[in-house]
Amino acid sequence: MQNRITQLLGCTYPIIQAGMVWCSGWRLAAAVSEAGGLGVIGAGSMSPELLREHIQSYRKHCQKPFAVNLPLLYSQVEEHVKIVIEEKVPVVISSAGNPALYTGHLQAQGIRVMHVVSSAAFARKAAQCGVEAVIAEGVEAGGHNGKEETTTLCLLPLVCEAVQVPVIAAGGIASGKAMLAAFALGAEGVQIGSLFATAQESSAHPDFKAKILSATEGSTRLSLKKLNPVRLLQNEFARQVQELEAQGASAETLRALLGKGRARLGMFEGNLDDGELEIGQVAYMIRESKPAAQLVAEIWNEFLLTADKIKNIHA
Amino acid sequence: MQNRITQLLGCTYPIIQAGMVWCSGWRLAAAVSEAGGLGVIGAGSMSPELLREHIQSYRKHCQKPFAVNLPLLYSQVEEHVKIVIEEKVPVVISSAGNPALYTGHLQAQGIRVMHVVSSAAFARKAAQCGVEAVIAEGVEAGGHNGKEETTTLCLLPLVCEAVQVPVIAAGGIASGKAMLAAFALGAEGVQIGSLFATAQESSAHPDFKAKILSATEGSTRLSLKKLNPVRLLQNEFARQVQELEAQGASAETLRALLGKGRARLGMFEGNLDDGELEIGQVAYMIRESKPAAQLVAEIWNEFLLTADKIKNIHA
Repeated sequence: MQNRITQLLGCTYPIIQAGMVWCSGWRLAAAVSEAGGLGVIGAGSMSPELLREHIQSYRKHCQKPFAVNLPLLYSQVEEHVKIVIEEKVPVVISSAGNPALYTGHLQAQGIRVMHVVSSAAFARKAAQCGVEAVIAEGVEAGGHNGKEETTTLCLLPLVCEAVQVPVIAAGGIASGKAMLAAFALGAEGVQIGSLFATAQESSAHPDFKAKILSATEGSTRLSLKKLNPVRLLQNEFARQVQELEAQGASAETLRALLGKGRARLGMFEGNLDDGELEIGQVAYMIRESKPAAQLVAEIWNEFLLTADKIKNIHA
Repeated sequence: MQNRITQLLGCTYPIIQAGMVWCSGWRLAAAVSEAGGLGVIGAGSMSPELLREHIQSYRKHCQKPFAVNLPLLYSQVEEHVKIVIEEKVPVVISSAGNPALYTGHLQAQGIRVMHVVSSAAFARKAAQCGVEAVIAEGVEAGGHNGKEETTTLCLLPLVCEAVQVPVIAAGGIASGKAMLAAFALGAEGVQIGSLFATAQESSAHPDFKAKILSATEGSTRLSLKKLNPVRLLQNEFARQVQELEAQGASAETLRALLGKGRARLGMFEGNLDDGELEIGQVAYMIRESKPAAQLVAEIWNEFLLTADKIKNIHA
């Protein structure tokens, strides 16, 4: 299969692994890229020097194209940008910030830029900034989310209508069936986070992975809406947040409770009570930690199988 | 096309119009059924005698099968049940309550029963009660929603895995593309609310319809979570609710603000400031009020067109 996304990114399948904080270093990215998807190194939880090490390690182990995810809200983003340029990273996925800031600068260095959006309005803005593709992420996604709380099913058609560049669907996708659903709605690729967070090559703490695998319905909640809405797996910390929120706590109170380093504490160090555990609603579909290559193959095969079923739907 | 849903319901297309309060009387139901879908009379906003009148008017104008939606939380539900039995209604869609209460009783009278669920756990329970199909409704739907806030994209695969009976997708569906996405996820039919609320035959107040047509991203919010979560179109009343909620208002305070008759006031009487305006997130995809027959035809044609595109996706 060839489409605008595989051509843009140079991968075999239009399956992109999300660049998640604390989960996606070079090992996961290389495993996904080797399997035909696009591996992504998540810079959001890396110091500039660590990011450089991961890019160089990736290159030692894998010759295929990859991307770096740069959340634009982090304080070290300028150093990150400098490094992806110096290291000639082929693709940058920017998120959580203004695409006007770095898109042109990166592209002038030969880097392709895709931007993550949570609304058609932001998609239009990103397209105006010249990004090569947008990633439309619905509210079922783990981690930070848009204030409109638009679901992937509602978001995709509107974004596909709003922009001419290809659209990659994110949020709630962990299977070939969901990938086909996204394509029916107009997407030309998918970005998958939660499922790859549980992959064997993910750097998430084993206890965090185990907790994801035991998630059930209602196990994630959109929390901290007075700060930036973030989808969290339920634990003691999330319950404390929700109790404060139910009492009408201010942004300041919530920021004080959140403090610093909660995501690292939970997702990387495995403190399941006090850590901030970012994961998507689709977590409860995931029952087993598998090698990333197997995940890519299973998604792609199920995508083809579902397309075949659709062919017969009104035959 | 024939599948388990068209066979169960006796309709041409597996497209079910949602039985919405204040919008779906006999005119809308008859228009949808005449066009090949399944029309539904919404009993939730009708007195028992008015429900009987609507059933009888439907029968005067349309010979095709139809359904009555019975929200089980209403105080007059026992009288409603008596009337649907006396009037030999072919199908009942029960919602917002325990399917153990009336499913067997209705079925003993030859009535087919489908139940609306917001989780796989509730789907399993409904199947155990013997319902002929479940309607899996994601959090993007208008009106009352489940506490887990599961989106249609995440909900459908889990429900389809949980039960053997056919599954109808609801929430976020207002196009043939979305219908195909639902089928890719395992659904065999769709239930469509917001779009039909704006149909020319809908009994929604013209000003409410106009407000739906002008909705934009973020125009609906899941509100009143401390009572029963309900998706509302933003207006003065919704803003009052959200302000109280942000301050940590109790369920009692919210119930006092809500009072009685707000949905009628907004949706039927057209008081757009003080009324409770229930509508789905997909509202912003709807731009024009059309005859219901045209909506059914457009959805079905787009469904077939999208299936054709999928055929070529990896050709």
